[in-house]
Amino acid sequence: MRVVVPFDAVEPKTRLSPLLDAEERAAFARVLLEDVLDALHGAGVEPTVYATAPVDVDAPVVVDERGLDPLVNGLLSSSNTTDRGGSVPDASPPTEPLAVVMADLGLAAPPALERLFATDGDVVLAPGRGGGTNALVIRDPAFSVDFHGVSLQDHRANAREIDAELAEVDSARLSTDVDEPADVAEVLLHGVGRAPAWLRERGFEVSVTDGRADVVRRV
Amino acid sequence: MRVVVPFDAVEPKTRLSPLLDAEERAAFARVLLEDVLDALHGAGVEPTVYATAPVDVDAPVVVDERGLDPLVNGLLSSSNTTDRGGSVPDASPPTEPLAVVMADLGLAAPPALERLFATDGDVVLAPGRGGGTNALVIRDPAFSVDFHGVSLQDHRANAREIDAELAEVDSARLSTDVDEPADVAEVLLHGVGRAPAWLRERGFEVSVTDGRADVVRRV
Repeated sequence: MRVVVPFDAVEPKTRLSPLLDAEERAAFARVLLEDVLDALHGAGVEPTVYATAPVDVDAPVVVDERGLDPLVNGLLSSSNTTDRGGSVPDASPPTEPLAVVMADLGLAAPPALERLFATDGDVVLAPGRGGGTNALVIRDPAFSVDFHGVSLQDHRANAREIDAELAEVDSARLSTDVDEPADVAEVLLHGVGRAPAWLRERGFEVSVTDGRADVVRRV
Repeated sequence: MRVVVPFDAVEPKTRLSPLLDAEERAAFARVLLEDVLDALHGAGVEPTVYATAPVDVDAPVVVDERGLDPLVNGLLSSSNTTDRGGSVPDASPPTEPLAVVMADLGLAAPPALERLFATDGDVVLAPGRGGGTNALVIRDPAFSVDFHGVSLQDHRANAREIDAELAEVDSARLSTDVDEPADVAEVLLHGVGRAPAWLRERGFEVSVTDGRADVVRRV
């Protein structure tokens, strides 16, 4: 299985600006990426990072400025070409599945990723909070992605259109992309990598008044 | 396993007042409860509702006004008494486990609940978004609950204090209690029971501008 982690190295995590300044947001995005790579290694796969600018991490990095949809759809059509290009079509090997895992899944842990990779289906989605798609496994190269808008609904529809067998993974860890301040509380409560320590070193802690936990920064 | 669903029949879901008036909130809370009961039946268990006022649903109902913590801790100490009360202590049967499932888990589905019930551990927690505890299985009657504040942290600490084996279930469905308007979008996107239809009949639909999906009401 090819495992791809797209990474926006330029101005990441702007919705965290109430908590972190631009330099901190860039550093935090890097820490989240490293945690995701560690979790993927723990799940026994070898991810490749597709970054919009060079980044030094414990994985091969391809610099690719195409943007998320053209990147993933390009990778899918290249596997598609491979699949159809043999001179003996009936003997051509099955297309290698493509997994895409977002770089900001701050709660990612090996068991959740292993469940994703082990789930049968031509298209396996890990829904993100608010209708996003936080990770997916694509075993049918006729599928295409569209990460804009309510991508989960689009991906369900795209799978139906090509008669692909669709499955979804029920994981709170994979559903939590770290975009908004409340997500940072989730990292403090459930994170297993570097990110919780990084946040605590900078004064963040969980706070609750009424309802759900949020974060405060003690400086 | 005893399975208990506590239900607040008096002024439920006040944090949904931006979307629903008081009468609608009461009706929606009932619909969510019915969906949770259906999901539990689908998972092969027979839940009992502990409600603060009489309610007519497809399950036995006990009216109990004690409040959540005294209710659950009372049920635990009654099982504790049973456990220790035999005249032949060594031959006494193991305490029957107690499962508590919140009535507002609008995404609950049998597979997620089956995973919860099948997870080994003296205390098995299903974390809720924002540090809550949305469901739990208690197999050690020395455990006690405290649902105020960041209950997940308190429950982890309580389990450690009594040397109970602690486990957590990684489920987005069980992590989603329907408290805030954004949770209503999750029900529309992922709900499997009556609640999504109930919302659509009243004009609610998923809307996305930038970032995560929210709900709008077309009237």
